[in-house]
Amino acid sequence: MSKILRVNMTTQKVNIEEVPEKYLALGGRGLTSQIILDEVPADCHPLGPNNKLVIAPGLLSGTSAPSSGRLSVGGKSPLTGTIKEANAGGITSQKLANLGIKAIIVEGKPSKGTYVLRVTADNVELIPADDLAGKGTYELTAVLRERYNKKAGVICIGPAGEMRMLSAGVANNDSEGNSSRYAGRGGLGAVMGSKGLKAIVVESDKTFDAPVQDKERFKAAAKKFADILLKHPVTGEGLPSYGTNVLMNIINEAGTLPTRNFRTGRFDRAAEVSGEKLAEVAVARGGKATHTCHPGCVIRCSNVYPLPDGTVCAPVEYETAWSFGPNLEISDLDVIAKLNYICNDVGLDTIETGCTLGVLMEAGVLPFGDGQAAIKALEEVGKGTPLGRIIGAGAAVAGKVYGVTRVPVVKGQGIPAYDPRACKGNGVTYATSTMGADHTAGYAVTANILKVGGFVEPTKEDGQIELSRNLQVATAAIDATGLCLFVAFAVLDNPEGLPTIVEMLNAQYGTDLTVDDVVALGQQILKNEREFNTKAGFTKADDRLPEFFYNEELAPHNTKFELKDELDEVYNF
Amino acid sequence: MSKILRVNMTTQKVNIEEVPEKYLALGGRGLTSQIILDEVPADCHPLGPNNKLVIAPGLLSGTSAPSSGRLSVGGKSPLTGTIKEANAGGITSQKLANLGIKAIIVEGKPSKGTYVLRVTADNVELIPADDLAGKGTYELTAVLRERYNKKAGVICIGPAGEMRMLSAGVANNDSEGNSSRYAGRGGLGAVMGSKGLKAIVVESDKTFDAPVQDKERFKAAAKKFADILLKHPVTGEGLPSYGTNVLMNIINEAGTLPTRNFRTGRFDRAAEVSGEKLAEVAVARGGKATHTCHPGCVIRCSNVYPLPDGTVCAPVEYETAWSFGPNLEISDLDVIAKLNYICNDVGLDTIETGCTLGVLMEAGVLPFGDGQAAIKALEEVGKGTPLGRIIGAGAAVAGKVYGVTRVPVVKGQGIPAYDPRACKGNGVTYATSTMGADHTAGYAVTANILKVGGFVEPTKEDGQIELSRNLQVATAAIDATGLCLFVAFAVLDNPEGLPTIVEMLNAQYGTDLTVDDVVALGQQILKNEREFNTKAGFTKADDRLPEFFYNEELAPHNTKFELKDELDEVYNF
Repeated sequence: MSKILRVNMTTQKVNIEEVPEKYLALGGRGLTSQIILDEVPADCHPLGPNNKLVIAPGLLSGTSAPSSGRLSVGGKSPLTGTIKEANAGGITSQKLANLGIKAIIVEGKPSKGTYVLRVTADNVELIPADDLAGKGTYELTAVLRERYNKKAGVICIGPAGEMRMLSAGVANNDSEGNSSRYAGRGGLGAVMGSKGLKAIVVESDKTFDAPVQDKERFKAAAKKFADILLKHPVTGEGLPSYGTNVLMNIINEAGTLPTRNFRTGRFDRAAEVSGEKLAEVAVARGGKATHTCHPGCVIRCSNVYPLPDGTVCAPVEYETAWSFGPNLEISDLDVIAKLNYICNDVGLDTIETGCTLGVLMEAGVLPFGDGQAAIKALEEVGKGTPLGRIIGAGAAVAGKVYGVTRVPVVKGQGIPAYDPRACKGNGVTYATSTMGADHTAGYAVTANILKVGGFVEPTKEDGQIELSRNLQVATAAIDATGLCLFVAFAVLDNPEGLPTIVEMLNAQYGTDLTVDDVVALGQQILKNEREFNTKAGFTKADDRLPEFFYNEELAPHNTKFELKDELDEVYNF
Repeated sequence: MSKILRVNMTTQKVNIEEVPEKYLALGGRGLTSQIILDEVPADCHPLGPNNKLVIAPGLLSGTSAPSSGRLSVGGKSPLTGTIKEANAGGITSQKLANLGIKAIIVEGKPSKGTYVLRVTADNVELIPADDLAGKGTYELTAVLRERYNKKAGVICIGPAGEMRMLSAGVANNDSEGNSSRYAGRGGLGAVMGSKGLKAIVVESDKTFDAPVQDKERFKAAAKKFADILLKHPVTGEGLPSYGTNVLMNIINEAGTLPTRNFRTGRFDRAAEVSGEKLAEVAVARGGKATHTCHPGCVIRCSNVYPLPDGTVCAPVEYETAWSFGPNLEISDLDVIAKLNYICNDVGLDTIETGCTLGVLMEAGVLPFGDGQAAIKALEEVGKGTPLGRIIGAGAAVAGKVYGVTRVPVVKGQGIPAYDPRACKGNGVTYATSTMGADHTAGYAVTANILKVGGFVEPTKEDGQIELSRNLQVATAAIDATGLCLFVAFAVLDNPEGLPTIVEMLNAQYGTDLTVDDVVALGQQILKNEREFNTKAGFTKADDRLPEFFYNEELAPHNTKFELKDELDEVYNF
């Protein structure tokens, strides 16, 4: 019943294929990475016809499993050259799953033209749409929902993706139509753009009705899982109260908030851009301190931030508040939200863009702390000017263009909002992840800072390799389920967490999986990804942080990052 | 008696060191690569304090050995990330050798400031020179020769190097003061710029008086070697008559002249930019069809091309005439010479810059064939505008900035003037050279096109691996001697060639080297370089050509490049 849509952009033909046996037990990142490994030559140009864009809902997506609406997008990354999976909330994952679509594989490359793929319960159609070329994601999503279905999920790219900018993301929308749920990292929007695919419109009235073999058993497990989430202080209180930006004050207090392009670990004006402040301003302006990015999420970590000019940025996440805030020495939430909004609309990853602006400030192209200059620069992206192009190409390229040595990237991808010198578990993840620097790939902030799932002293080396390894394995598995990674907070602290996820999977698929099988799945995903990267030429030399993290101390803890050869042990499993 | 100058730019101190035993038998590329391997961490940032710039004359430089005035410049390349040696003619190699200087090692990084290193027989001094910051190489060289010594050799960088642009070269001058002899490739000018070193002024009245143990024996060998060069049709006739650009018509005729960013192998207006045409115009305007780039060269392949505006470009080499000519579909020699002149003055490698302009034309930023647009764009480099910065960053970066898939680079370095699909021996060299795409690293045009040193069918795979391997080994050895690579034309065809080089070395150093020892030296140099690259993370995946050479046929021979795994056999020695 479930199927794979194969969209050949060279011929503009769509094939509906049966799901091969070997893919039946895979979903989300597990499936995208497997298909990329199987079908994409590791040495192909990421923007050429031989790369593929693979979109897949998670194994639990489209059911009533709480917080299970993540959408995985995969391909060979034009930003990093590695395999890439980026995932996002929003409403399309659930709709795809309810349409019985296991994956969409977009391949080939048209000689010209802009297309929209429309997917309904009865039909799949590739529609020429040159009239939509160049549109920002907000207008585009509104036009497509108006044109086809007012409740559609729209997976799309902005002008940045069309211009094949290396840090372009793939957006989809929340229930209100905000096109701001981004599979942001690694430039998969440029891959979609290289294929002339502007949007995928997904129409389904169903949200929670994906097939489940044992409905009662599933319902009980889902209910139990929701309880586990709601009982944990992070997923049941912290995130639902202030959203992800609740982290700003915490990370600043911990002295690991990268400030002024990773020069120090504290920002004296952090409180001005914190989640508490954001909630206050958002609510005062008629926005929301928190809301859900997709139906059925009990964590509700997203927010709705109205700007003074009437536009609405939903959400402003912690990593974005950091990338445009402390990272650039900017402490004006409205400036941050404006930069965020521009990125959402033009179609750029906010973390990468913040890192890039940091590098440009380092180079003296813009002054640190100058929010208006940052906005003006970012507005160049949509115009495709040389400066706009440099910004869209990401921090590593900007560093090369301006001859900057302080460039916070691993495998070409910008390092996010936790300095690796005072949150060393995250440093291990940044260095060794198959994805390039990625905080979500093995979020050691848990044990390093939040004391979730135990405690590992963040400024010391001891235990960080093991911590990151275990988190990377667990994350890969979670990313296959379609569950939001934030469930990990509760799962790490509750011995019933992981068994309950397994129980949901077994009830849905009629399988007899054990917890060990889920761990094995996570390991297999990482092995697949690593196999692709090795074929693409990556070695242990790429599994390192930039030189300056090893040579410069980070205040206030005055620690360097010192793990090098030990990093090669992460993949010993 | 010979010494190493170690210039610490962090402390601005110069140490004069004895030459360690292990370096005594090394020179040129042999010495620069050995020092880089020994002293530079392979994982350092190329523009940071831990990279080093090493400058060394060849083993025979400064003697009466004909055509032995090559100057080697080494470091970790900011363009490729590999080890790098680029060498140039000009008069400084001979002067350094006559001062008994085996190598200059520039290390560290000042907090600010611009410096000039002045080297005389009696003194070595690092002189603050902020007044010279931003000067083009022509004016700079004139000012420094006026200020210190009218016959000085000046090793210097232009504004591109100061701005740490990845394709900035290191210049030095000919006897007339033209600062146009470039160790151009790989961005070593950016390394020099990152260290705040604007120029090295080398003062010596001596040219041919480097110590020789057995002067009579040496004189006889040098005389014999000159005869060998003068008797060969390439080094005795072709090059002395028309310079390197004699190749334009030959390579076009062979159907391997990359045209319109490597789309076809023939340019219908090649004759308009050929060496024959260049010689005619140059002479008519009072320039020179050929002249020497350094005293004692018998090949005299350089030229002096006066532009209509009165400026003089000396020389216009074949690879430059190609990069700004057929590569961009430009057939106006004055435009080519003007682009060449701007590169020389601002301090950019002409091959890389031509490849970069080709990529920008591919992206639609400039129109193919529009010489005035190319000149205007190139003039942005000195101003450091975003477009100028993109141009200075080289073809690989420009490709990333504009999302271009047809980017002719290997290991980040632009592919020069011989299409690898119809001159496959060169393709093997581009793919596997330790330097990134480099025609001089193993110039298979010899046997593929010129029928020098045998004949290997250029469009077929057979024999190309062995051809490139042998040439790469021989080239590494020749690059250690300070002999111009062009001696290889004669050496390959004359069984007395290599023994005569060995005879000169033995007469100079009192050694008992054999021809086998010279081969072993070449192999050891390649092994050293490869060891550095492996440490820096390079693998066989990097030893490949860009995807499009494997997928698109080149007219008129309609051949693709098909060697992949076979390339891994090049280093089997």
